[in-house]
Amino acid sequence: MKLVRYGEIGHERPGLIDEAGVLRDLSSLVSDIAGKVLLPESLARLRAVDTEELLPVEGAPRLGACVGHVGKFVCIGLNYTDHAREAGLPIPEEPVVFLKPTSCIVGPNDNVEIPRGATKTDWEVELGIVIGKPAKYITVEEAYAHIAGYCVVNDVSERGFQLERGGTWDKGKGCDTFGPVGPWLVTTDEIPDPQALDMWLEVDGVRRQSGSTRTMIFDVPTLVSYVSQFMSLQPGDIISTGTPPGVGLGMKPPVYLTPGQTMRLSVSGLGVQEQRLVAAG
Amino acid sequence: MKLVRYGEIGHERPGLIDEAGVLRDLSSLVSDIAGKVLLPESLARLRAVDTEELLPVEGAPRLGACVGHVGKFVCIGLNYTDHAREAGLPIPEEPVVFLKPTSCIVGPNDNVEIPRGATKTDWEVELGIVIGKPAKYITVEEAYAHIAGYCVVNDVSERGFQLERGGTWDKGKGCDTFGPVGPWLVTTDEIPDPQALDMWLEVDGVRRQSGSTRTMIFDVPTLVSYVSQFMSLQPGDIISTGTPPGVGLGMKPPVYLTPGQTMRLSVSGLGVQEQRLVAAG
Repeated sequence: MKLVRYGEIGHERPGLIDEAGVLRDLSSLVSDIAGKVLLPESLARLRAVDTEELLPVEGAPRLGACVGHVGKFVCIGLNYTDHAREAGLPIPEEPVVFLKPTSCIVGPNDNVEIPRGATKTDWEVELGIVIGKPAKYITVEEAYAHIAGYCVVNDVSERGFQLERGGTWDKGKGCDTFGPVGPWLVTTDEIPDPQALDMWLEVDGVRRQSGSTRTMIFDVPTLVSYVSQFMSLQPGDIISTGTPPGVGLGMKPPVYLTPGQTMRLSVSGLGVQEQRLVAAG
Repeated sequence: MKLVRYGEIGHERPGLIDEAGVLRDLSSLVSDIAGKVLLPESLARLRAVDTEELLPVEGAPRLGACVGHVGKFVCIGLNYTDHAREAGLPIPEEPVVFLKPTSCIVGPNDNVEIPRGATKTDWEVELGIVIGKPAKYITVEEAYAHIAGYCVVNDVSERGFQLERGGTWDKGKGCDTFGPVGPWLVTTDEIPDPQALDMWLEVDGVRRQSGSTRTMIFDVPTLVSYVSQFMSLQPGDIISTGTPPGVGLGMKPPVYLTPGQTMRLSVSGLGVQEQRLVAAG
């Protein structure tokens, strides 16, 4: 299934994209694509519905983040060998974990704000894992059973705030709009192998990132198990799994985003995001 | 006002502690101590209520975290000169910011779990700021108007996970139960000067931390303004402002927590927390 949330900011309704690509409303069945709706038994009930019986949605409404009420937005750093190299940082011996505040989450096609005082705003296409079942101290073998599905994440980052303002990375990772999520939450049955997904990102039509989840250092089940050793995971939590090479920071000289530019990005089977850059008001 | 949330985990009800120390139920007036209930106009309405008309609560129920549905739990590191020194880290030139996942939040007297594999679990008494009005790019002068009140926070930390496992501090700061918050959310009218509050923490009755918010490097309004430059703040967000000297990491040799021990801690006017240490199941 391809689950979505559509409508104005803060008033998104649940929907799904059917096999013909038609957006259909799910609000007669669930209140949101969030929390307990992502539990395996709940997703199984949705999967059993005849999509023809769901009302098609008129027009082309805005899409919100494909998961609502995200409790935690956990990110993995330096999880592609080549990206660690371009960032000039050592290959990590165990996963690098940081957090984005959930207030940075926006829809897949919403504007991305370049913060006041920022000069090094950068892109990062990533595979996002959406948790579907509570997880604490789970093994690698158990991990897939705790995943509801996958989505595209743009882990937008301000390198000046992240690396030059002291302390942890969190200052440059959580600015408002720095977390486009979606367009779709694609359930695991449609993604038999999350380690075989191509991914790309373009800025103003110029290809900047090309990669594949094949080259992750720590794979999806390892990451879910690993994070669950440090904090319990709940349905609707997102783990973003790191970015392949090609970020602005890694170019010689580095290239960063400016207002008026457009980012387009995708992970195979998970849809395309497109954001316009604007200056923060 | 001293606002509280009482009752079983996940089913807390809103209440207040009246001038005689009696817990009274607020659920006829507000649904929770959370989000929009913390807006200035909402707190003004609660302040105008005759507490005698609120039903007293029987018995001595468990207290939950004094704020519900916390959106962000932002923490400031190394914000007391002496603590930075004992941690062997330089005095920061600007505030050190990190995040605790909200899944670590527990009530002020709930058990604190020592995670599996942990050997360096440590205590940190802190003054918590509870946001009461949305804040983005606010000035230091504007900051107080965005604060609903204050509370005690124990920024429990696993030093091995925080400092020896690669990446940012977040791995050792967000384990389940690592965020006791409360007992009370004390509104700003009762705390005329948040920079004049004594604070202490004891382990098994032995005083470990003694300090005062007077010795903060960056004061309360500076921190609220500063964080708002990097992420917008919403009502119910918490900023924990750093810990004074006396943590286990700073002792020679370091001393860490073990199951069966008890932490007691307080900030003047904000009540006392007491947690028993247990091994994570």
